[in-house]
Amino acid sequence: MHMSKVRIAVAGASGYAGGEVLRLLLGRDDVEIGALTGGSNAGEKLGVLQPHLVPLADRVLEPTNAETLAGHDVVFLGLPHGQSAAIAEQLGDDVVVIDCGADFRLTDSAEWEKFYGGTHAGSWPYGLPELPGQRAQLAGAKRIAVPGCYPTVSTLTLAPAVQAGLITPDVVVVAASGTSGAGKSLKANLLGSEVMGNVSAYGVGGVHRHTPEITQNLALLTDDDVTVSFTPLLVPMPRGILATCSAPITPGTTAEQAYEAYKGFYADEPFVTVLPQGVWPQTKSVLGSNSVHLQVTVDETAGRLVAVGAVDNLAKGTAGAAVQCMNLALGLPEGTGLTTIGLAP
Amino acid sequence: MHMSKVRIAVAGASGYAGGEVLRLLLGRDDVEIGALTGGSNAGEKLGVLQPHLVPLADRVLEPTNAETLAGHDVVFLGLPHGQSAAIAEQLGDDVVVIDCGADFRLTDSAEWEKFYGGTHAGSWPYGLPELPGQRAQLAGAKRIAVPGCYPTVSTLTLAPAVQAGLITPDVVVVAASGTSGAGKSLKANLLGSEVMGNVSAYGVGGVHRHTPEITQNLALLTDDDVTVSFTPLLVPMPRGILATCSAPITPGTTAEQAYEAYKGFYADEPFVTVLPQGVWPQTKSVLGSNSVHLQVTVDETAGRLVAVGAVDNLAKGTAGAAVQCMNLALGLPEGTGLTTIGLAP
Amino acid sequence: MHMSKVRIAVAGASGYAGGEVLRLLLGRDDVEIGALTGGSNAGEKLGVLQPHLVPLADRVLEPTNAETLAGHDVVFLGLPHGQSAAIAEQLGDDVVVIDCGADFRLTDSAEWEKFYGGTHAGSWPYGLPELPGQRAQLAGAKRIAVPGCYPTVSTLTLAPAVQAGLITPDVVVVAASGTSGAGKSLKANLLGSEVMGNVSAYGVGGVHRHTPEITQNLALLTDDDVTVSFTPLLVPMPRGILATCSAPITPGTTAEQAYEAYKGFYADEPFVTVLPQGVWPQTKSVLGSNSVHLQVTVDETAGRLVAVGAVDNLAKGTAGAAVQCMNLALGLPEGTGLTTIGLAP
Amino acid sequence: MHMSKVRIAVAGASGYAGGEVLRLLLGRDDVEIGALTGGSNAGEKLGVLQPHLVPLADRVLEPTNAETLAGHDVVFLGLPHGQSAAIAEQLGDDVVVIDCGADFRLTDSAEWEKFYGGTHAGSWPYGLPELPGQRAQLAGAKRIAVPGCYPTVSTLTLAPAVQAGLITPDVVVVAASGTSGAGKSLKANLLGSEVMGNVSAYGVGGVHRHTPEITQNLALLTDDDVTVSFTPLLVPMPRGILATCSAPITPGTTAEQAYEAYKGFYADEPFVTVLPQGVWPQTKSVLGSNSVHLQVTVDETAGRLVAVGAVDNLAKGTAGAAVQCMNLALGLPEGTGLTTIGLAP
Repeated sequence: MHMSKVRIAVAGASGYAGGEVLRLLLGRDDVEIGALTGGSNAGEKLGVLQPHLVPLADRVLEPTNAETLAGHDVVFLGLPHGQSAAIAEQLGDDVVVIDCGADFRLTDSAEWEKFYGGTHAGSWPYGLPELPGQRAQLAGAKRIAVPGCYPTVSTLTLAPAVQAGLITPDVVVVAASGTSGAGKSLKANLLGSEVMGNVSAYGVGGVHRHTPEITQNLALLTDDDVTVSFTPLLVPMPRGILATCSAPITPGTTAEQAYEAYKGFYADEPFVTVLPQGVWPQTKSVLGSNSVHLQVTVDETAGRLVAVGAVDNLAKGTAGAAVQCMNLALGLPEGTGLTTIGLAP
Repeated sequence: MHMSKVRIAVAGASGYAGGEVLRLLLGRDDVEIGALTGGSNAGEKLGVLQPHLVPLADRVLEPTNAETLAGHDVVFLGLPHGQSAAIAEQLGDDVVVIDCGADFRLTDSAEWEKFYGGTHAGSWPYGLPELPGQRAQLAGAKRIAVPGCYPTVSTLTLAPAVQAGLITPDVVVVAASGTSGAGKSLKANLLGSEVMGNVSAYGVGGVHRHTPEITQNLALLTDDDVTVSFTPLLVPMPRGILATCSAPITPGTTAEQAYEAYKGFYADEPFVTVLPQGVWPQTKSVLGSNSVHLQVTVDETAGRLVAVGAVDNLAKGTAGAAVQCMNLALGLPEGTGLTTIGLAP
Repeated sequence: MHMSKVRIAVAGASGYAGGEVLRLLLGRDDVEIGALTGGSNAGEKLGVLQPHLVPLADRVLEPTNAETLAGHDVVFLGLPHGQSAAIAEQLGDDVVVIDCGADFRLTDSAEWEKFYGGTHAGSWPYGLPELPGQRAQLAGAKRIAVPGCYPTVSTLTLAPAVQAGLITPDVVVVAASGTSGAGKSLKANLLGSEVMGNVSAYGVGGVHRHTPEITQNLALLTDDDVTVSFTPLLVPMPRGILATCSAPITPGTTAEQAYEAYKGFYADEPFVTVLPQGVWPQTKSVLGSNSVHLQVTVDETAGRLVAVGAVDNLAKGTAGAAVQCMNLALGLPEGTGLTTIGLAP
Repeated sequence: MHMSKVRIAVAGASGYAGGEVLRLLLGRDDVEIGALTGGSNAGEKLGVLQPHLVPLADRVLEPTNAETLAGHDVVFLGLPHGQSAAIAEQLGDDVVVIDCGADFRLTDSAEWEKFYGGTHAGSWPYGLPELPGQRAQLAGAKRIAVPGCYPTVSTLTLAPAVQAGLITPDVVVVAASGTSGAGKSLKANLLGSEVMGNVSAYGVGGVHRHTPEITQNLALLTDDDVTVSFTPLLVPMPRGILATCSAPITPGTTAEQAYEAYKGFYADEPFVTVLPQGVWPQTKSVLGSNSVHLQVTVDETAGRLVAVGAVDNLAKGTAGAAVQCMNLALGLPEGTGLTTIGLAP
C-alpha cells in the first residue's frame, strides 16, 4: 500500500528556521515540498539564498499569502512576530499549521503584551512533547506553537528538578547561544567580524522575550511560585545553546538523587539524553540533531542544584521540534526524518 | 525477505575518521556495529572519547589486532600510516577491508617511499568512484584504499578540465582545510587557542604527502605530463576543505565551454554538483554530507582556468567515501546512509 | 638622568602567561629581558614556541631553576601549580617575584588543600589593586600572587554590590572563557577541532579551583556570609572571559542606584570601566588590553541584581595584572606598558 | 621643547578602517583627535558604534563634509569608493590627506575604469614605503593613497623574487582573508552565522578590484610582462590575510638563494620580517601589529617558487599603513605608535 505524500509549504523559506525545516524534510520520501515563500526575498532563487539546499536551487520564492500557501497538508510558518495569526486564519481548519514564531506560545495575554507589545493572538498547543501531558495534545493537532529555542533547553534542563521538588523554583538560567538564534537579520552586531572572537550578553535583567515562556513552562510542574532570572549570551558559533541552570536545593537532596530523578523523568524520551555521570553536555554533540543532552549535580557548599543542557537551537530548538510536531500531528512515528546523533567534531 | 545485517568493525574508533564512519552507520538498520578498537585508548569508554555517539557510550575500546577484528563482514581501518598492511593480511580474503589511511593509495613505490618512507605495501582499488572507470573496480572489491581528503577535492575539481584538454596540466592547488584533517593528534599547533583567529600554511613547496596522489589521479586523465604545485592551509574551522585550482588555459577556451565541460563530466554523479553559474562553493554547504560542490571560470587576462571545489574532509573526504565504497563493494545502492545536503548555517 | 633598565626573567616562557608577559614587555625601553626558562621545552628556540615574539626568535629556553633565574630585578613565574614556592625561596628577598600561578593566592590553608591538594605554601600580597586597600600592599612588595583570571573578573563585577550591601552575597557566577585560560596543555578536549563550534561546561558544582578565591575576595567586602555558585564555560575563542553574576537584590534597590554605586566604586580606577548605561560588555572590546568592562542592572521580577564583566584572561586576567603589579612594586606609573583599548574587531 | 600636537580628523569613523586608525592613535600623546564623521551614522555616539574605543564613547559623529573636516593637520578618509576626491579637493593643499580607499591607487585610468567604473580621479603617492624608492615619495607628502590590503601582502610577498628575476612574473596568488576586509557592510553573506565554520571563494577569475593594483606594483620591479591570477578566500576570523603566492622558477634557482634574496631585500625594513627558515607565516602572529611575515621556498618538482605572507588587513593592511604614512609625511619616526608584535594566541 502506498500512502500519498504529505504536501508541505514553508512560509519564510529564506530564513534560518525555514531553511532548517527544508534540510530536514529533503531527505524524506514521504514528503513533497510545495510552496516556498518569502517576504522581501520573494522572486529570488533559493539557490542564492540557501545554497546548501541544492535540490531546491531553482525554486523561486513566492510572496507569503493565503493564496500561495493554500492547498498543502502542512504549512510551516517562519515569519516575523505578529504575522502568523492573519495567515493562519485563512488556511482552513483541516490544514496543519506549525508556527515557528512566538505569536501563540504564551497563554497569559498580559505577559504577551508586556514582552511583545500589541494584541495577543491567543495560544496554540505547545510543541514540547517532552513536557508531561503535552504529547497527547499534539497528536492530531491542527495548530501548533513551536517553543522558543531558549525555553526548550531551559525547560527540559530544569523540569525534573522542579517537578520532583528538588529545588525552590527560584531559578537562574545563563544560556550561551550561537548566532543563528538571532535569525538572518542584517544587524551590525551580528556580522562575522563582530561575533568571532567575542562573547557578549544581551537582553539582561529579565527583559528577554523568552523569560515568561520559561516561567510558564516550569509553573506547570509545581504549585510553588516560579521566578526565572534569565541571561542570554551570544557566543562565536553558528548553532547551539548551552544552558546553565541553578536553583536553591531542597535540604537533604544529594547529587545521586538528582541524577536518578533526571534519569527517571526522561527514561522514555527518545530525544532527551541524561549523559553518563561525569560527562557534561557540549553543544557540538547535538549539532544538527533533535537531541537534548543533560547533566545535573549538587553544589553543597553553595546550596544549589546545577543542571546543564545542550540543544541545537535550529534543530530541536526550532525546526526539528517543528518536524517532530508534524509527525505527531499526522500520526507518523515521532522520530521520522530526525537524527539523534550530532555532527561532531 | 530479510537480509541479515552487515556486521562491521572499526579499527581506530576513537579518531575522527573512525568516529565519522560510526556517525554515518549509526542511523542504518541494515548495519550492525561490532568491534571498536583503539591503540593507546584501548580499555576506555567511547562515551568519553566520542561523546556525540550516544548509543555507543558504554562501548569499551578493544585493542587493535586480528583477533578483535575477526568475524566481521566489513572492517574499516582508521590507523596511523604503516599499520594497515599487517592487519589486513590477517583478516581473510572474504572480508571487505576499507583503509582510510594512506598505505595503499599510491601505485608508484618510488613515490610512496619518497613521501612516506619505509617499504611500500602495494596498492588497492582506489575509492574514488567519480573517476572514469573507477566505479567498476569497486563493485565487489574486497580491499579498498580510501583517497586522501585533499586529493579527493583537488582531483574532482580539476578532472573535467584535464580530461577535456582545456588546460595544460601544470596545476596550482591551494587548499584551505579545517583542523580535523590533521586528526586528533595532541600537537600544540592544533590547540584551539592556536588555530582560532588564525590561518597558516604548512607542507609548502611540494612536500605534503597528498601531492603525488593528486598527480597520480590527474595523470590517469591525460597523456601530457602532469605537475602539481600543492599548498595546504590550516583555517579556523573543524571541518571542510576549499580547494582553489588553476592552470594555463588552452587558447580559445571560454568560461562557457569550461562550465559545460564540468556539467557534462558530472551529469550522472549523485555526489558531485556543479553549482549554478555565478554561485561559488563554500564548505558549509557540504558539511556532514557526501557532496562535492564545484564551480569553474576562465581568467582571460591571466590566461588561466580557475576552478574551486568544496568538500567535508571527514565525510566525502574520508568516512563518507568509505561508506560509499562499502555500499559499492557489497552491491548496495551507492548512496545508502549518505546525505547530499550539508548542515548550514 | 637615565635609570638603569629593569632586568626581568620569565620562568615558563613557552606558556601562554609567560608569552603574554613578554609581549607586554617587549615594547618597553625601560625593561631588559633576561633569562627565559622552560620545563620540557628547555633547549628549544622561542621562535618556534612563540612565533609572534619575533625579536626573541633566537632565544633558547634555559631550564627553570634558581641558577638561571638569579641576577634579575623581577622574576615572573608561569609554572604548574606547586612549583613556585621552591623557586621563590632561592631567589633572595630583594628580588621581586610575581607568581602567575595559584600557589600563594589563598589565605586559608584548609581551602587550599581541599581544592589543590598537598601542603599550602602560604599567601603573598594579592595582585588586585582595584580591591579596596590592596594597592597599598603592592607598592614596594617583593612577593606578589597574581589573581586567577575568573576571580579577577568575578570579583570586580560583584565588589561594588557586595560592599554597598545592594545584594545578599549568595552569588551565582557563570563565566564563559576562551580556551587560552586552560593553558597550552596537550589535551584532546582543547584541540581546535573540538572547541570550534562548541560550548561546554566544566568544573560544575562548586569544584573549580577558582571558587574559593572568589569567595575569599568578596568576603573582604562584607560581614555577611558569602556563598558562590561558580560555573565556567569553555567557548570557541582564544581569549577573553565574560562573567554573568547575579544575587538576590536588597529590597528597594533600583537599577539606577546600582549603576551609580558601580560608577562611584571605580571612579578613580584606570583599568575598570563601567560602560554607558544600556551598553553591555563584550570580550572583544578588552582584547589584549588591561581593561575590565562592567555593566549592571536590576531584574525586579526575579528579585536579582545582574552584573556582567569582561576581561582578557591573558592580559588583565593574568599577564597584564602581573605587569601592573610589577609597576606598583617598583614604584613606576601603574599603567606603564599597558593599554586600555582592546583590539576590535 | 614641546611640539604642538598633531590634530587629526577621521572621515568614516564608524567603519573598520576608521576605527583602527583611532585605536592606533588613541595611545599617542603627540596626537589630538579632532572631528569624527560618518555617513548614515552621523548623529550617533561612538560608544555604541565602536564600543572598544572607550575614551571616545561620548563623541557624536558629525556629517562628512569639508566644513567638519576643516582645521586639522591630517585627515584620514575611510569612505566608500568614489567619495574621496570631492572631499580632498576642498581640504587645502597644506592638509595631509590620507585616503584608505581605492580612488587614488591606480595610475592607469583604463584599468581604474575597467575595475571600478566611473571616472578615474587620478593617482596619489602610493603608501607602501617598503617598495623600492617609495619611501622618499612619502616624506613630506600631502596626499597619500593607502594600498589595498591584498595588494600590500601580495606585493611584499612577491617583490624580492620579481626584482631579482628569480621567477617568470606570471604569478598565482590565493589569499585567505578575515571578514573585516569586507568592511562593516550589512550583507547576509557576512553574518556570523554564515562565515563561521565556512570558507568560500569570491571574486574568482581575475575580477577582484585588487588585481590590477598587484599587477601595477610588481610591474615596477621588472621589465617583463606581469600577469596575476588572484583569488580571494573568505575565512572564519575577523582579521588577517595569508597570501600564498607562486610563479615559475627561473631555472637553477635554489631555495637557499631565494631565502637569501628575501632576507637581503628586507634587511632594513622594520615592518617586514622574513621568518627563520622552516617557520611559515601565520596571521595570528601579526594581529594588531604593523608587521608582515614572510617565508619562501622552491618546489623543484613543480618548478615553482612558493612564497607566503601574512598581514593584519586592518593594521599594516590599512590603518597601520595609514599611520606609518602619516609619520613619514610629517617627518616623525616612521614607527611611532605602531607595534611589531602581534596579539597571540
